[in-house]
Amino acid sequence: MLTPAAARAQYRAGLIAPTSGHAPGFTQANLVVLPRDWAYDMLLFGQRNPKPVPLLDVTDAGSTSTVLAPGADLRTDLPKYRVWRDGELVDEPADVVDLWRDDLVSFLIGCSFSFERALLDAGVPVRNLEQGKNVSMYRTDRECRPAGRLSGPLVVSMRPIPAALVATAVQVTARMPRVHGAPVHVGSPEALGIVDNARPDFGDPVDAEPGDVPVYWACGVTPQAALMEVRPPFAITHAPGHMFVTDVPDAVYREP
Amino acid sequence: MLTPAAARAQYRAGLIAPTSGHAPGFTQANLVVLPRDWAYDMLLFGQRNPKPVPLLDVTDAGSTSTVLAPGADLRTDLPKYRVWRDGELVDEPADVVDLWRDDLVSFLIGCSFSFERALLDAGVPVRNLEQGKNVSMYRTDRECRPAGRLSGPLVVSMRPIPAALVATAVQVTARMPRVHGAPVHVGSPEALGIVDNARPDFGDPVDAEPGDVPVYWACGVTPQAALMEVRPPFAITHAPGHMFVTDVPDAVYREP
Repeated sequence: MLTPAAARAQYRAGLIAPTSGHAPGFTQANLVVLPRDWAYDMLLFGQRNPKPVPLLDVTDAGSTSTVLAPGADLRTDLPKYRVWRDGELVDEPADVVDLWRDDLVSFLIGCSFSFERALLDAGVPVRNLEQGKNVSMYRTDRECRPAGRLSGPLVVSMRPIPAALVATAVQVTARMPRVHGAPVHVGSPEALGIVDNARPDFGDPVDAEPGDVPVYWACGVTPQAALMEVRPPFAITHAPGHMFVTDVPDAVYREP
Repeated sequence: MLTPAAARAQYRAGLIAPTSGHAPGFTQANLVVLPRDWAYDMLLFGQRNPKPVPLLDVTDAGSTSTVLAPGADLRTDLPKYRVWRDGELVDEPADVVDLWRDDLVSFLIGCSFSFERALLDAGVPVRNLEQGKNVSMYRTDRECRPAGRLSGPLVVSMRPIPAALVATAVQVTARMPRVHGAPVHVGSPEALGIVDNARPDFGDPVDAEPGDVPVYWACGVTPQAALMEVRPPFAITHAPGHMFVTDVPDAVYREP
Protein backbone atom coordinates (compact mmCIF):
# COMPACT_ATOMS: atom_id res chain seq x y z
CA MET A 1 0.00 0.00 0.00
CA LEU A 2 1.37 3.38 -1.05
CA THR A 3 1.61 6.43 1.14
CA PRO A 4 -0.11 9.52 -0.28
CA ALA A 5 3.28 11.07 -1.09
CA ALA A 6 4.42 7.92 -2.91
CA ALA A 7 1.18 7.76 -4.90
CA ARG A 8 1.55 11.41 -5.92
CA ALA A 9 5.19 10.82 -6.91
CA GLN A 10 4.05 8.08 -9.31
CA TYR A 11 1.48 10.36 -10.93
CA ARG A 12 4.05 13.15 -11.12
CA ALA A 13 6.38 10.73 -12.89
CA GLY A 14 3.71 10.07 -15.51
CA LEU A 15 1.47 7.26 -14.25
CA ILE A 16 -2.09 7.74 -15.50
CA ALA A 17 -4.54 5.64 -13.49
CA PRO A 18 -7.73 6.08 -11.47
CA THR A 19 -6.91 6.86 -7.84
CA SER A 20 -9.57 4.65 -6.28
CA GLY A 21 -7.88 2.27 -3.85
CA HIS A 22 -4.54 4.11 -4.01
CA ALA A 23 -3.24 5.26 -0.62
CA PRO A 24 -6.31 3.83 1.15
CA GLY A 25 -7.40 5.64 4.31
CA PHE A 26 -6.41 9.08 3.00
CA THR A 27 -8.87 11.65 1.73
CA GLN A 28 -9.06 12.22 -2.02
CA ALA A 29 -10.31 15.49 -3.42
CA ASN A 30 -11.97 16.91 -6.52
CA LEU A 31 -10.02 19.77 -8.12
CA VAL A 32 -11.46 22.87 -9.77
CA VAL A 33 -9.06 25.62 -10.92
CA LEU A 34 -10.42 28.99 -12.04
CA PRO A 35 -9.02 32.45 -12.79
CA ARG A 36 -9.16 34.87 -9.85
CA ASP A 37 -11.90 36.77 -11.68
CA TRP A 38 -14.18 33.73 -11.23
CA ALA A 39 -12.95 32.64 -7.82
CA TYR A 40 -15.40 34.71 -5.77
CA ASP A 41 -18.36 33.16 -7.57
CA MET A 42 -16.96 29.65 -7.03
CA LEU A 43 -16.19 30.29 -3.36
CA LEU A 44 -19.70 31.66 -2.82
CA PHE A 45 -21.19 28.72 -4.78
CA GLY A 46 -19.45 26.37 -2.35
CA GLN A 47 -20.53 28.37 0.70
CA ARG A 48 -24.15 28.29 -0.47
CA ASN A 49 -24.15 24.65 -1.59
CA PRO A 50 -22.04 22.84 1.02
CA LYS A 51 -23.49 19.38 0.39
CA PRO A 52 -22.45 19.06 -3.27
CA VAL A 53 -19.47 21.47 -2.96
CA PRO A 54 -17.73 20.92 0.41
CA LEU A 55 -14.61 23.07 0.12
CA LEU A 56 -11.70 21.41 1.91
CA ASP A 57 -9.17 24.06 0.83
CA VAL A 58 -8.96 27.14 -1.39
CA THR A 59 -5.48 28.27 -2.41
CA ASP A 60 -4.02 31.73 -2.84
CA ALA A 61 -4.03 32.92 -6.46
CA GLY A 62 -1.07 31.46 -8.35
CA SER A 63 -0.11 29.05 -5.59
CA THR A 64 0.57 25.44 -6.60
CA SER A 65 0.41 24.03 -3.08
CA THR A 66 -2.31 23.23 -0.54
CA VAL A 67 -2.43 22.72 3.21
CA LEU A 68 -4.03 19.33 2.54
CA ALA A 69 -0.68 17.94 1.32
CA PRO A 70 2.37 20.11 2.07
CA GLY A 71 5.00 19.45 -0.57
CA ALA A 72 2.54 18.41 -3.27
CA ASP A 73 2.35 20.32 -6.57
CA LEU A 74 -1.21 20.78 -7.83
CA ARG A 75 0.06 21.16 -11.43
CA THR A 76 1.64 17.70 -11.64
CA ASP A 77 0.47 15.46 -8.80
CA LEU A 78 -2.90 14.35 -10.14
CA PRO A 79 -2.80 11.47 -12.65
CA LYS A 80 -4.96 13.23 -15.24
CA TYR A 81 -6.50 16.66 -15.72
CA ARG A 82 -9.22 18.19 -17.85
CA VAL A 83 -8.81 21.58 -19.52
CA TRP A 84 -11.92 23.61 -20.33
CA ARG A 85 -12.20 26.66 -22.59
CA ASP A 86 -15.55 28.47 -22.80
CA GLY A 87 -17.18 25.44 -21.20
CA GLU A 88 -15.81 22.97 -23.77
CA LEU A 89 -13.47 20.15 -22.82
CA VAL A 90 -10.36 20.75 -24.96
CA ASP A 91 -7.67 18.48 -23.47
CA GLU A 92 -6.94 15.77 -20.90
CA PRO A 93 -3.25 16.19 -20.10
CA ALA A 94 -1.13 14.40 -17.47
CA ASP A 95 0.06 17.73 -16.06
CA VAL A 96 -0.84 21.41 -16.42
CA VAL A 97 2.57 23.01 -15.86
CA ASP A 98 2.49 24.86 -19.19
CA LEU A 99 -1.04 26.13 -18.58
CA TRP A 100 -0.43 27.53 -15.11
CA ARG A 101 -0.95 31.24 -14.53
CA ASP A 102 -0.43 33.62 -11.61
CA ASP A 103 -4.16 34.32 -11.37
CA LEU A 104 -5.34 30.72 -10.95
CA VAL A 105 -7.12 29.74 -7.73
CA SER A 106 -7.49 26.04 -6.85
CA PHE A 107 -10.53 24.62 -5.08
CA LEU A 108 -10.13 21.22 -3.38
CA ILE A 109 -13.54 19.63 -2.84
CA GLY A 110 -14.51 16.62 -0.72
CA CYS A 111 -15.07 13.32 -2.54
CA SER A 112 -17.38 10.39 -1.84
CA PHE A 113 -14.46 7.91 -1.91
CA SER A 114 -14.05 8.84 1.78
CA PHE A 115 -17.56 7.83 2.72
CA GLU A 116 -17.55 4.66 0.60
CA ARG A 117 -14.77 3.39 2.82
CA ALA A 118 -16.80 4.35 5.92
CA LEU A 119 -19.81 2.47 4.51
CA LEU A 120 -17.70 -0.65 4.00
CA ASP A 121 -16.31 -0.32 7.54
CA ALA A 122 -19.93 -0.27 8.80
CA GLY A 123 -20.84 -3.43 6.86
CA VAL A 124 -22.76 -1.65 4.10
CA PRO A 125 -21.96 -3.11 0.66
CA VAL A 126 -20.94 -0.65 -2.07
CA ARG A 127 -22.20 -2.15 -5.32
CA ASN A 128 -20.08 -0.03 -7.67
CA LEU A 129 -16.92 -1.25 -5.90
CA GLU A 130 -18.16 -4.85 -5.94
CA GLN A 131 -18.79 -4.55 -9.67
CA GLY A 132 -15.56 -2.71 -10.44
CA LYS A 133 -17.44 0.25 -11.85
CA ASN A 134 -17.53 4.00 -11.40
CA VAL A 135 -20.51 5.19 -9.36
CA SER A 136 -23.69 6.25 -11.25
CA MET A 137 -24.26 10.01 -11.32
CA TYR A 138 -27.28 12.03 -12.51
CA ARG A 139 -28.25 15.63 -13.14
CA THR A 140 -31.36 16.32 -11.07
CA ASP A 141 -34.18 18.82 -11.59
CA ARG A 142 -33.09 20.62 -8.42
CA GLU A 143 -31.17 23.83 -8.98
CA CYS A 144 -28.26 24.74 -6.75
CA ARG A 145 -28.50 28.10 -5.03
CA PRO A 146 -26.83 30.42 -7.60
CA ALA A 147 -23.76 32.47 -6.75
CA GLY A 148 -22.88 35.41 -8.99
CA ARG A 149 -22.49 33.99 -12.51
CA LEU A 150 -22.45 30.37 -11.33
CA SER A 151 -25.59 28.26 -11.42
CA GLY A 152 -26.53 24.75 -12.37
CA PRO A 153 -28.32 21.59 -11.35
CA LEU A 154 -27.59 19.52 -8.28
CA VAL A 155 -25.75 16.39 -9.45
CA VAL A 156 -26.19 13.28 -7.30
CA SER A 157 -24.48 9.92 -7.06
CA MET A 158 -26.64 6.84 -6.51
CA ARG A 159 -25.75 3.69 -4.62
CA PRO A 160 -28.11 0.71 -4.35
CA ILE A 161 -28.26 -0.13 -0.63
CA PRO A 162 -29.91 -3.19 0.96
CA ALA A 163 -33.16 -1.93 2.52
CA ALA A 164 -32.19 -3.16 5.97
CA LEU A 165 -28.98 -1.10 5.85
CA VAL A 166 -30.36 2.22 4.55
CA ALA A 167 -30.59 3.65 8.07
CA THR A 168 -26.98 2.65 8.75
CA ALA A 169 -25.86 4.25 5.48
CA VAL A 170 -27.64 7.49 6.44
CA GLN A 171 -26.06 7.53 9.91
CA VAL A 172 -22.54 6.76 8.68
CA THR A 173 -22.53 9.41 5.97
CA ALA A 174 -24.35 12.01 8.10
CA ARG A 175 -21.25 12.00 10.29
CA MET A 176 -19.11 13.08 7.30
CA PRO A 177 -20.54 16.46 6.22
CA ARG A 178 -17.23 17.52 4.66
CA VAL A 179 -17.54 14.70 2.12
CA HIS A 180 -21.20 15.28 1.10
CA GLY A 181 -22.84 14.07 4.34
CA ALA A 182 -26.25 12.42 4.60
CA PRO A 183 -28.18 11.43 1.46
CA VAL A 184 -30.36 14.06 -0.19
CA HIS A 185 -32.97 11.46 -1.11
CA VAL A 186 -33.88 7.81 -0.55
CA GLY A 187 -36.00 5.72 -2.85
CA SER A 188 -37.70 7.61 -5.68
CA PRO A 189 -35.67 8.68 -8.72
CA GLU A 190 -38.77 10.57 -9.99
CA ALA A 191 -38.60 12.91 -7.01
CA LEU A 192 -35.24 14.17 -8.33
CA GLY A 193 -36.29 14.20 -11.98
CA ILE A 194 -34.22 11.10 -12.77
CA VAL A 195 -35.92 9.15 -15.58
CA ASP A 196 -33.97 5.89 -15.43
CA ASN A 197 -31.43 4.74 -12.84
CA ALA A 198 -29.92 2.49 -15.53
CA ARG A 199 -28.91 5.49 -17.67
CA PRO A 200 -26.68 7.76 -15.59
CA ASP A 201 -25.48 11.11 -16.94
CA PHE A 202 -21.96 10.46 -15.65
CA GLY A 203 -20.17 7.29 -14.56
CA ASP A 204 -21.36 3.73 -15.13
CA PRO A 205 -24.71 1.97 -14.73
CA VAL A 206 -24.51 -0.10 -11.54
CA ASP A 207 -26.66 -3.18 -11.00
CA ALA A 208 -28.90 -3.29 -7.94
CA GLU A 209 -29.31 -6.56 -6.06
CA PRO A 210 -32.81 -7.78 -5.15
CA GLY A 211 -34.04 -5.81 -2.13
CA ASP A 212 -31.73 -2.86 -2.74
CA VAL A 213 -33.10 0.70 -2.47
CA PRO A 214 -31.55 3.53 -4.53
CA VAL A 215 -29.96 6.10 -2.23
CA TYR A 216 -28.84 9.48 -3.60
CA TRP A 217 -26.03 11.67 -2.30
CA ALA A 218 -24.97 15.17 -3.38
CA CYS A 219 -22.04 14.77 -5.75
CA GLY A 220 -18.77 16.62 -6.35
CA VAL A 221 -19.45 16.66 -10.10
CA THR A 222 -21.96 19.45 -9.36
CA PRO A 223 -19.40 22.26 -9.83
CA GLN A 224 -18.26 20.72 -13.14
CA ALA A 225 -21.89 20.70 -14.31
CA ALA A 226 -22.15 24.37 -13.36
CA LEU A 227 -18.96 25.17 -15.29
CA MET A 228 -20.31 23.35 -18.36
CA GLU A 229 -23.50 25.39 -18.08
CA VAL A 230 -21.98 28.79 -17.40
CA ARG A 231 -18.88 28.46 -19.62
CA PRO A 232 -16.13 30.51 -18.00
CA PRO A 233 -13.31 31.26 -20.47
CA PHE A 234 -10.82 28.94 -18.76
CA ALA A 235 -10.89 26.19 -16.16
CA ILE A 236 -8.90 23.14 -15.14
CA THR A 237 -10.37 20.18 -13.26
CA HIS A 238 -9.27 16.65 -12.37
CA ALA A 239 -10.35 13.97 -14.85
CA PRO A 240 -13.20 11.87 -13.41
CA GLY A 241 -11.88 9.25 -11.00
CA HIS A 242 -8.37 10.73 -11.19
CA MET A 243 -8.45 12.64 -7.92
CA PHE A 244 -5.96 14.56 -5.82
CA VAL A 245 -4.66 12.26 -3.06
CA THR A 246 -4.20 14.32 0.12
CA ASP A 247 -2.19 13.64 3.27
CA VAL A 248 -5.35 13.96 5.41
CA PRO A 249 -6.57 10.70 6.99
CA ASP A 250 -10.24 9.98 6.24
CA ALA A 251 -10.86 9.89 9.99
CA VAL A 252 -10.29 13.66 10.18
CA TYR A 253 -13.54 14.18 8.27
CA ARG A 254 -15.50 11.66 10.33
CA GLU A 255 -17.31 13.35 13.19
CA PRO A 256 -17.70 11.65 16.55
CA MET B 1 -41.84 35.06 24.39
CA LEU B 2 -41.42 36.87 21.09
CA THR B 3 -41.19 35.20 17.71
CA PRO B 4 -38.09 36.15 15.70
CA ALA B 5 -40.20 38.32 13.37
CA ALA B 6 -41.79 40.14 16.31
CA ALA B 7 -38.39 40.74 17.93
CA ARG B 8 -37.02 42.14 14.65
CA ALA B 9 -40.10 44.37 14.28
CA GLN B 10 -39.37 45.91 17.70
CA TYR B 11 -35.75 46.64 16.75
CA ARG B 12 -36.90 48.04 13.42
CA ALA B 13 -39.28 50.34 15.30
CA GLY B 14 -36.37 51.68 17.33
CA LEU B 15 -35.86 49.42 20.35
CA ILE B 16 -32.18 49.28 21.31
CA ALA B 17 -31.47 46.32 23.61
CA PRO B 18 -29.17 43.30 23.76
CA THR B 19 -30.75 40.32 21.99
CA SER B 20 -29.77 37.68 24.54
CA GLY B 21 -32.91 35.86 25.65
CA HIS B 22 -35.07 37.42 22.92
CA ALA B 23 -36.86 34.87 20.71
CA PRO B 24 -35.28 31.97 22.62
CA GLY B 25 -34.66 28.82 20.60
CA PHE B 26 -33.82 30.71 17.40
CA THR B 27 -30.30 31.19 16.07
CA GLN B 28 -28.73 34.62 16.44
CA ALA B 29 -25.95 35.73 14.12
CA ASN B 30 -23.00 38.12 14.04
CA LEU B 31 -23.12 40.58 11.13
CA VAL B 32 -20.16 41.85 9.08
CA VAL B 33 -20.85 44.05 6.03
CA LEU B 34 -18.05 44.89 3.59
CA PRO B 35 -17.73 46.41 0.13
CA ARG B 36 -17.64 43.86 -2.70
CA ASP B 37 -13.97 44.67 -3.20
CA TRP B 38 -13.25 43.12 0.24
CA ALA B 39 -15.84 40.35 0.10
CA TYR B 40 -13.57 37.73 -1.47
CA ASP B 41 -11.01 38.13 1.29
CA MET B 42 -13.71 37.85 3.97
CA LEU B 43 -15.31 34.82 2.34
CA LEU B 44 -11.91 33.13 2.07
CA PHE B 45 -11.10 34.09 5.67
CA GLY B 46 -14.27 32.30 6.77
CA GLN B 47 -13.54 29.27 4.61
CA ARG B 48 -10.04 28.99 6.08
CA ASN B 49 -11.06 29.69 9.69
CA PRO B 50 -14.40 27.91 10.11
CA LYS B 51 -14.23 27.61 13.90
CA PRO B 52 -14.09 31.36 14.66
CA VAL B 53 -15.88 32.41 11.43
CA PRO B 54 -18.69 29.92 10.64
CA LEU B 55 -20.50 31.55 7.73
CA LEU B 56 -24.23 30.85 7.94
CA ASP B 57 -25.09 33.03 4.93
CA VAL B 58 -23.40 35.44 2.51
CA THR B 59 -25.69 37.80 0.59
CA ASP B 60 -25.52 39.05 -2.98
CA ALA B 61 -23.92 42.49 -3.28
CA GLY B 62 -26.44 45.21 -2.45
CA SER B 63 -29.06 42.80 -1.14
CA THR B 64 -30.69 43.67 2.18
CA SER B 65 -32.20 40.23 2.77
CA THR B 66 -30.95 36.80 3.82
CA VAL B 67 -32.22 33.24 3.50
CA LEU B 68 -31.89 32.96 7.28
CA ALA B 69 -34.94 35.20 7.77
CA PRO B 70 -37.00 35.87 4.64
CA GLY B 71 -38.70 39.25 4.98
CA ALA B 72 -36.10 40.71 7.31
CA ASP B 73 -34.17 43.85 6.34
CA LEU B 74 -30.50 43.72 7.33
CA ARG B 75 -30.30 47.55 7.37
CA THR B 76 -32.92 48.02 10.11
CA ASP B 77 -33.65 44.76 11.91
CA LEU B 78 -30.71 44.63 14.30
CA PRO B 79 -31.08 46.72 17.47
CA LYS B 80 -27.72 48.45 17.11
CA TYR B 81 -24.92 48.62 14.53
CA ARG B 82 -21.31 49.71 14.46
CA VAL B 83 -19.86 51.72 11.57
CA TRP B 84 -16.13 51.48 10.85
CA ARG B 85 -14.02 53.72 8.62
CA ASP B 86 -10.37 52.84 8.06
CA GLY B 87 -10.59 50.48 11.03
CA GLU B 88 -11.88 53.14 13.44
CA LEU B 89 -15.30 52.88 15.09
CA VAL B 90 -17.09 56.08 14.01
CA ASP B 91 -20.76 55.52 14.94
CA GLU B 92 -23.23 53.17 16.63
CA PRO B 93 -26.55 53.86 14.90
CA ALA B 94 -29.89 52.06 15.31
CA ASP B 95 -30.13 51.50 11.54
CA VAL B 96 -27.84 51.83 8.51
CA VAL B 97 -30.38 52.74 5.82
CA ASP B 98 -28.58 55.96 4.88
CA LEU B 99 -25.21 54.19 4.68
CA TRP B 100 -26.32 51.33 2.44
CA ARG B 101 -24.65 50.91 -0.96
CA ASP B 102 -25.14 48.65 -3.94
CA ASP B 103 -21.71 47.08 -3.46
CA LEU B 104 -22.17 45.94 0.14
CA VAL B 105 -22.00 42.20 0.92
CA SER B 106 -23.36 40.93 4.25
CA PHE B 107 -21.79 38.03 6.15
CA LEU B 108 -23.92 36.32 8.80
CA ILE B 109 -21.76 34.37 11.22
CA GLY B 110 -22.74 31.78 13.83
CA CYS B 111 -22.91 32.95 17.46
CA SER B 112 -22.22 31.15 20.72
CA PHE B 113 -25.66 32.09 22.10
CA SER B 114 -26.87 28.93 20.31
CA PHE B 115 -24.49 26.63 22.13
CA GLU B 116 -25.01 28.31 25.51
CA ARG B 117 -28.61 27.18 25.31
CA ALA B 118 -27.46 23.66 24.39
CA LEU B 119 -25.10 23.67 27.40
CA LEU B 120 -27.96 24.63 29.72
CA ASP B 121 -30.15 21.91 28.20
CA ALA B 122 -27.39 19.40 29.03
CA GLY B 123 -27.17 20.55 32.65
CA VAL B 124 -23.95 22.54 32.22
CA PRO B 125 -24.10 25.88 34.07
CA VAL B 126 -23.21 29.00 32.08
CA ARG B 127 -21.65 31.40 34.59
CA ASN B 128 -21.95 34.56 32.49
CA LEU B 129 -25.71 33.99 32.21
CA GLU B 130 -25.99 33.22 35.95
CA GLN B 131 -24.13 36.48 36.70
CA GLY B 132 -26.03 38.56 34.13
CA LYS B 133 -22.82 39.44 32.33
CA ASN B 134 -21.46 39.35 28.80
CA VAL B 135 -19.09 36.44 28.20
CA SER B 136 -15.31 37.09 28.64
CA MET B 137 -13.36 37.28 25.37
CA TYR B 138 -9.61 37.44 24.73
CA ARG B 139 -7.22 37.99 21.86
CA THR B 140 -4.91 34.97 21.74
CA ASP B 141 -1.36 34.61 20.46
CA ARG B 142 -2.62 32.25 17.74
CA GLU B 143 -2.91 33.78 14.30
CA CYS B 144 -5.81 32.92 12.04
CA ARG B 145 -4.89 31.55 8.64
CA PRO B 146 -4.66 34.75 6.53
CA ALA B 147 -6.83 35.28 3.46
CA GLY B 148 -5.80 37.95 0.98
CA ARG B 149 -5.52 41.23 2.91
CA LEU B 150 -7.29 39.82 6.00
CA SER B 151 -5.33 38.54 8.98
CA GLY B 152 -5.54 38.74 12.71
CA PRO B 153 -5.48 36.85 15.98
CA LEU B 154 -7.87 34.11 16.98
CA VAL B 155 -10.27 35.58 19.54
CA VAL B 156 -11.73 33.15 22.08
CA SER B 157 -14.56 33.26 24.57
CA MET B 158 -14.03 31.65 27.99
CA ARG B 159 -16.59 29.96 30.19
CA PRO B 160 -15.73 28.55 33.64
CA ILE B 161 -17.09 24.98 33.63
CA PRO B 162 -17.31 22.61 36.63
CA ALA B 163 -14.50 20.07 36.16
CA ALA B 164 -16.90 17.13 36.21
CA LEU B 165 -18.87 18.64 33.32
CA VAL B 166 -16.01 19.63 30.99
CA ALA B 167 -16.39 16.42 28.96
CA THR B 168 -20.13 17.07 28.59
CA ALA B 169 -19.47 20.64 27.48
CA VAL B 170 -17.02 19.39 24.85
CA GLN B 171 -19.46 16.79 23.53
CA VAL B 172 -22.44 19.16 23.39
CA THR B 173 -20.59 21.92 21.55
CA ALA B 174 -18.71 19.52 19.25
CA ARG B 175 -22.10 18.66 17.78
CA MET B 176 -22.60 22.31 16.78
CA PRO B 177 -19.75 23.10 14.36
CA ARG B 178 -21.75 25.88 12.66
CA VAL B 179 -21.73 27.84 15.93
CA HIS B 180 -18.01 27.46 16.80
CA GLY B 181 -18.05 23.75 17.70
CA ALA B 182 -15.79 22.09 20.25
CA PRO B 183 -13.49 24.16 22.49
CA VAL B 184 -10.08 25.11 21.10
CA HIS B 185 -8.50 24.73 24.53
CA VAL B 186 -9.24 23.55 28.06
CA GLY B 187 -7.46 24.67 31.20
CA SER B 188 -4.36 26.81 30.60
CA PRO B 189 -4.78 30.47 29.64
CA GLU B 190 -0.97 30.66 29.18
CA ALA B 191 -1.18 28.20 26.29
CA LEU B 192 -3.19 30.79 24.36
CA GLY B 193 -1.11 33.77 25.48
CA ILE B 194 -3.83 34.99 27.85
CA VAL B 195 -2.21 36.76 30.82
CA ASP B 196 -5.17 37.06 33.17
CA ASN B 197 -8.64 35.51 32.84
CA ALA B 198 -9.95 38.36 35.02
CA ARG B 199 -9.02 40.98 32.42
CA PRO B 200 -10.77 40.11 29.15
CA ASP B 201 -10.11 42.11 25.98
CA PHE B 202 -13.84 42.18 25.16
CA GLY B 203 -16.95 41.56 27.29
CA ASP B 204 -17.06 41.30 31.08
CA PRO B 205 -14.92 39.53 33.68
CA VAL B 206 -16.89 36.47 34.82
CA ASP B 207 -16.33 34.88 38.24
CA ALA B 208 -15.40 31.19 38.37
CA GLU B 209 -16.88 29.00 41.09
CA PRO B 210 -14.56 26.74 43.14
CA GLY B 211 -13.72 23.68 41.05
CA ASP B 212 -14.43 25.38 37.72
CA VAL B 213 -12.00 24.95 34.82
CA PRO B 214 -11.62 27.69 32.18
CA VAL B 215 -12.76 26.40 28.77
CA TYR B 216 -12.04 28.39 25.59
CA TRP B 217 -14.08 28.45 22.41
CA ALA B 218 -13.33 30.16 19.08
CA CYS B 219 -15.29 33.42 19.04
CA GLY B 220 -17.25 35.36 16.42
CA VAL B 221 -15.46 38.57 17.43
CA THR B 222 -12.45 37.21 15.49
CA PRO B 223 -13.46 38.86 12.18
CA GLN B 224 -13.99 42.20 13.97
CA ALA B 225 -10.48 41.92 15.42
CA ALA B 226 -9.16 41.29 11.90
CA LEU B 227 -11.01 44.34 10.56
CA MET B 228 -9.54 46.47 13.35
CA GLU B 229 -6.09 45.20 12.42
CA VAL B 230 -6.36 45.44 8.63
CA ARG B 231 -8.49 48.63 8.44
CA PRO B 232 -10.61 48.36 5.31
CA PRO B 233 -11.99 51.76 4.25
CA PHE B 234 -15.59 50.92 5.23
CA ALA B 235 -17.39 48.25 7.22
CA ILE B 236 -20.59 47.80 9.20
CA THR B 237 -21.00 45.24 11.99
CA HIS B 238 -23.58 44.51 14.69
CA ALA B 239 -22.85 46.15 18.03
CA PRO B 240 -21.62 43.56 20.57
CA GLY B 241 -24.51 41.60 22.04
CA HIS B 242 -26.96 43.22 19.61
CA MET B 243 -27.23 40.36 17.15
CA PHE B 244 -29.33 39.50 14.12
CA VAL B 245 -32.22 37.25 15.23
CA THR B 246 -32.86 34.67 12.49
CA ASP B 247 -35.87 32.45 11.80
CA VAL B 248 -33.67 29.33 12.02
CA PRO B 249 -34.34 27.12 15.07
CA ASP B 250 -31.19 26.36 17.07
CA ALA B 251 -31.85 22.66 16.52
CA VAL B 252 -31.00 23.05 12.82
CA TYR B 253 -27.37 23.62 13.77
CA ARG B 254 -27.26 20.73 16.26
CA GLU B 255 -25.96 17.58 14.63
CA PRO B 256 -27.34 14.17 15.58
